[in-house]
Amino acid sequence: MEFKKIIEEKSNEYWGKYLPHLSIDCVVFGFHDATLKVLVVQMKEKNLWALPGGYVLKTENIKEAASRILQQRTGAANIYLQQFRVFSDLNRSEGFFEEFEDTIWHKQRFLSIGFYALVDYSQVNLVVDEISDACEWKPIDELPELMMDHRSIFDKALITLRKQLNHKPIGYNLLPEKFTMPELQKLYEIILGKKLNRGNFYRKMLRYDILIKLDEIRKGGAHKAPDLYQFDLEKYHLALKNGFSEGW
Amino acid sequence: MEFKKIIEEKSNEYWGKYLPHLSIDCVVFGFHDATLKVLVVQMKEKNLWALPGGYVLKTENIKEAASRILQQRTGAANIYLQQFRVFSDLNRSEGFFEEFEDTIWHKQRFLSIGFYALVDYSQVNLVVDEISDACEWKPIDELPELMMDHRSIFDKALITLRKQLNHKPIGYNLLPEKFTMPELQKLYEIILGKKLNRGNFYRKMLRYDILIKLDEIRKGGAHKAPDLYQFDLEKYHLALKNGFSEGW
Repeated sequence: MEFKKIIEEKSNEYWGKYLPHLSIDCVVFGFHDATLKVLVVQMKEKNLWALPGGYVLKTENIKEAASRILQQRTGAANIYLQQFRVFSDLNRSEGFFEEFEDTIWHKQRFLSIGFYALVDYSQVNLVVDEISDACEWKPIDELPELMMDHRSIFDKALITLRKQLNHKPIGYNLLPEKFTMPELQKLYEIILGKKLNRGNFYRKMLRYDILIKLDEIRKGGAHKAPDLYQFDLEKYHLALKNGFSEGW
Repeated sequence: MEFKKIIEEKSNEYWGKYLPHLSIDCVVFGFHDATLKVLVVQMKEKNLWALPGGYVLKTENIKEAASRILQQRTGAANIYLQQFRVFSDLNRSEGFFEEFEDTIWHKQRFLSIGFYALVDYSQVNLVVDEISDACEWKPIDELPELMMDHRSIFDKALITLRKQLNHKPIGYNLLPEKFTMPELQKLYEIILGKKLNRGNFYRKMLRYDILIKLDEIRKGGAHKAPDLYQFDLEKYHLALKNGFSEGW
């Protein structure tokens, strides 16, 4: 069915079940091949990319809404989610639904609540829904142009990750259960936006005492197999509560 | 006019001019007499205290809304404001407007956007409006019981201040232009929720190089007059940008 027809058909249904004027946009981060990636969807019939998003049912809170929206996109339940900011500029969606009647749901003014999500890349199965042509992971430094104010929603999400790196279990939620020290360092470097000294990083990480070195090494690969680690969850959460006060 | 009548009269007007289902609640901090205080209002005819709040005009963004709401309460323009969280529990306002018709504005489900505000205590003139009996500063450890989920909104605001102390100009916005080192230390202690060693605090503050020692001392008072300081705004903002990485 064509895009315009779908939007018109959905309008009545949406007025009935969602809270008006309120949307949710999700910046979903995944870490793969030493690269931090973000989930983007391509709108049907338009050469426009967007963050995955949706609306808030009259019967749910916003975290339930974000969780439902992401489960529909990724098949994954219990995704780690944090709201980080409301985007409310008057003209944030101007021009995108001009061809529609004024009463159409999508043409209203929407305030959007931004969530960031951290997923284990390997656990996700992307879903293309009926108003999109594609749903893909893109490296954060190769994002396509995003519609509306979605680029600025992404920018704020990344800044939030950087600020919360010492307080929230960001490493734990982005890495697979078992990981190498170079992978952990790479993730920190990407989020902090700077190179870190290998020796200092290792020493600090070991001093924080939040990692368990495993009795196994990664199989395959051409190089000398590196040691595998996992987080000691109890110590990790305690350290986050106090904050990693030394900086990186 | 009685409370119920005012609410019924306002309902139609509010449906016309505000975005439905969306409110703003403000946690306004002021620092006075070595005490951190918060602004609370007492609802008319009810023995209930609340945070000052309001709604979002269809023609403004949320920061403009919060700013307008606070200017009406305090007479002060350009108050330092930061949104910090959306509160969206389904039952957050349950029971407060039970005696009203279902179509009444106030009886709808509201998601509330929490802002914290930092004001120079001496610059504020409190206004009691037509649906409140009182508008007062209360020390944060002597708050009255608050209606709905306002206590938890306050709690989250204080935690946010603590987390942002090293990144946002919190001292600058809460202190008068000229202040003493003991006042600055006291403010940090209250926000961090712990005693700080005087010598360490002084040394760190001086090392960050963000204060200008003035050629004047505070007049009056029984004790030896303490030195006065003010922030070196340029250096202060630069330091905040990098974050005060040493901790306190």
